[in-house]
Amino acid sequence: MALLVQKFGGTSVGTVERIEAVADKVKAFRERGDDVVVVVSAMSGETNRLIGLAQAIMEEPTPREMDVLVSTGEQVTIALLSMALNKRGCEARSYTGAQVHIKTDSAHMKARILEIDENKMRADIEAGRVIVVAGFQGVDEQGNITTLGRGGSDTTAVALAAALKADECQIYTDVDGVYTTDPRVVDDARRMEKVTFEEMIEMASLGSKVLQIRAVEFAGKYDVPLRVLSSFEDGPGTLITTEDNDSMEQPLVSGIAFNRDEAKLTLLGVPDIPGIASKILRPISEDNIEVDMIVQNVGLDKKTDFTFTVHRNDYKRAKAILDRICEELGAQECVGDNDIAKVSIVGVGMRSHAGVATKMFDALSEEGINIQMISTSEIKISVVIDEKYLELAVRNLHSAFELEKAGNGPE
Amino acid sequence: MALLVQKFGGTSVGTVERIEAVADKVKAFRERGDDVVVVVSAMSGETNRLIGLAQAIMEEPTPREMDVLVSTGEQVTIALLSMALNKRGCEARSYTGAQVHIKTDSAHMKARILEIDENKMRADIEAGRVIVVAGFQGVDEQGNITTLGRGGSDTTAVALAAALKADECQIYTDVDGVYTTDPRVVDDARRMEKVTFEEMIEMASLGSKVLQIRAVEFAGKYDVPLRVLSSFEDGPGTLITTEDNDSMEQPLVSGIAFNRDEAKLTLLGVPDIPGIASKILRPISEDNIEVDMIVQNVGLDKKTDFTFTVHRNDYKRAKAILDRICEELGAQECVGDNDIAKVSIVGVGMRSHAGVATKMFDALSEEGINIQMISTSEIKISVVIDEKYLELAVRNLHSAFELEKAGNGPE
Repeated sequence: MALLVQKFGGTSVGTVERIEAVADKVKAFRERGDDVVVVVSAMSGETNRLIGLAQAIMEEPTPREMDVLVSTGEQVTIALLSMALNKRGCEARSYTGAQVHIKTDSAHMKARILEIDENKMRADIEAGRVIVVAGFQGVDEQGNITTLGRGGSDTTAVALAAALKADECQIYTDVDGVYTTDPRVVDDARRMEKVTFEEMIEMASLGSKVLQIRAVEFAGKYDVPLRVLSSFEDGPGTLITTEDNDSMEQPLVSGIAFNRDEAKLTLLGVPDIPGIASKILRPISEDNIEVDMIVQNVGLDKKTDFTFTVHRNDYKRAKAILDRICEELGAQECVGDNDIAKVSIVGVGMRSHAGVATKMFDALSEEGINIQMISTSEIKISVVIDEKYLELAVRNLHSAFELEKAGNGPE
Repeated sequence: MALLVQKFGGTSVGTVERIEAVADKVKAFRERGDDVVVVVSAMSGETNRLIGLAQAIMEEPTPREMDVLVSTGEQVTIALLSMALNKRGCEARSYTGAQVHIKTDSAHMKARILEIDENKMRADIEAGRVIVVAGFQGVDEQGNITTLGRGGSDTTAVALAAALKADECQIYTDVDGVYTTDPRVVDDARRMEKVTFEEMIEMASLGSKVLQIRAVEFAGKYDVPLRVLSSFEDGPGTLITTEDNDSMEQPLVSGIAFNRDEAKLTLLGVPDIPGIASKILRPISEDNIEVDMIVQNVGLDKKTDFTFTVHRNDYKRAKAILDRICEELGAQECVGDNDIAKVSIVGVGMRSHAGVATKMFDALSEEGINIQMISTSEIKISVVIDEKYLELAVRNLHSAFELEKAGNGPE
């Protein structure tokens, strides 16, 4: 007898048949006595169809109208799923974001949830109804329809779970949980039973695209237990929760994330004077290019080398800007590299353990993999290496930290 | 400088190109100084697509959820048209039925408008914006989405025009106005400049499917001048308005309507006792069969003949019921005829003129057309004839009442 918020993404509701399968799943939870609030995305393909219509009219459609348009995608799904539940004798009622008062700011296409009035939902739950809420959308102070940006349905689910003080927020996806690393790269990658919010955030931002990072942050902030499960097969999935202090032992490393989408840019022989970093990076950010890793070494002769990474799609633009800056600053040379990859080890355990970095660097050097950049945080160590060594590096690190062994994660 | 409510149906907004054409049209009105409120339907085909999805789940989908589903159709159109207007520098804002507080009762899929709060719209109009409102939909007291039933966008437009006291409500369709009769049957059928609400109601219910009859009734009740025009070509269309008392002369007849969709059923030799009509018709209506014309003659020997018409699709069901009733009432015989047509002459002028019926019957008998049933109202005379004479009858009546002549309509 729990109150569950269950979120089904676009693939899970992509056809009428799949919507019926979701209804079966929800009904099973109702029958064992749980109260259920369902959050759904648009049927897969629908949002892109709508965006296509808009872009046939305007290259950059009015954001307010874009939200009116794309919010219809989820509205279709809530109606269809409610019908499928009603057909099964499982009384259900659909609500748009506006109807359950998901109040957001007015930043169209990327709005943030401000508050949720849970009273209406509470009354339906008490009346024994399943509530089916449109994900990804809300309404601002003036009654305008807003959307949270792509993938925002996860955030809707977490926000509803927080408002309703649900026992668990379950995110159904096309994978059966969060893995120690990508199973396509490492055969014996293992599904984790549990992972902390902090670890999940580091994993997500590094390329494990299971959950929207914003939703994980939100869940962490409001301490909503979050579970990632498969829509298509049964299983416990992965529980994302706060750190478990009772665990006898924390593992050093919980997972390995990696990313091939970056490119590296270096300015060699830059005069080492105060303010040089912002002189280099301001023109980059002014051109809306996001910078990920930044490394600057203390140099000799009042000269330094300055390196950073950007998304590979922005590489050419960034290189052109940096060539200009190189000349302006009287730097020696501007060099870039497109063929790099970033590999990161993530784990709350490394906070209290020394030697994790050494173990990582040893594992890489044993294979003759040269480390080009290093960046660290409290629970993460990232390195940039030659892209061709990526799979080798991930496999070696996975086995060096014994991630294939059950129990070697905060169970 | 007028305040216009303009309604564009599904065909007029059926593609992105057509939505752009509507935006051009609206912009032209703005540029000559008019304030414009636009009401749109779903893009043609969209409502059927959504109904198809619902019916793949449930044969008779939950009405509340059906409204949530199909109301997305218009929501897509309002967003796209607003974008197209914004692109043209014509500031526009879209609103769903709920957003402009089109309050209805809770009869899902066939709701009736109770009231409209025009204040929000008024503010936008004063700020120089075009308002684009989703037709066909509203919201009930509890905030549930409702729809007015198919074709309800006309009603939305008239209701908005009434609430805003607009100067004119313009209904854009794929015809350029209301004709004296169907131009496919009579070559010199003439577009009427003006027609009264009453005449339009009789014409519409008799098969001239230009406007939703409910919208015409609504416009008549609130005295909203209604104009039918073409979406695709320029022209004044037909103005539907209250009777013009200043006209020197009213024509006898304004138009000729006809209908091939009916079938005739007769019970011969029924005992002529009180309550016999309801004994015959109650089982028919209890089976949800709508009855149109009803004729009962005073008979001899306390026997009477009772005839009525139903939609041709209901003929077989009605005949089976009537066969049973025939036996129960001890009537002589039950006969039916599928091959009939109804022809009606309509005109407010006939109220004050005698001899209109005679002229009609003469015109028909001249061609040897036998009249099977007659039914009259204040401004309409309908006859049922053999279907094969329909075109001949309509052409003869059109010329007998000189409808091809300009000015022979309330100009």
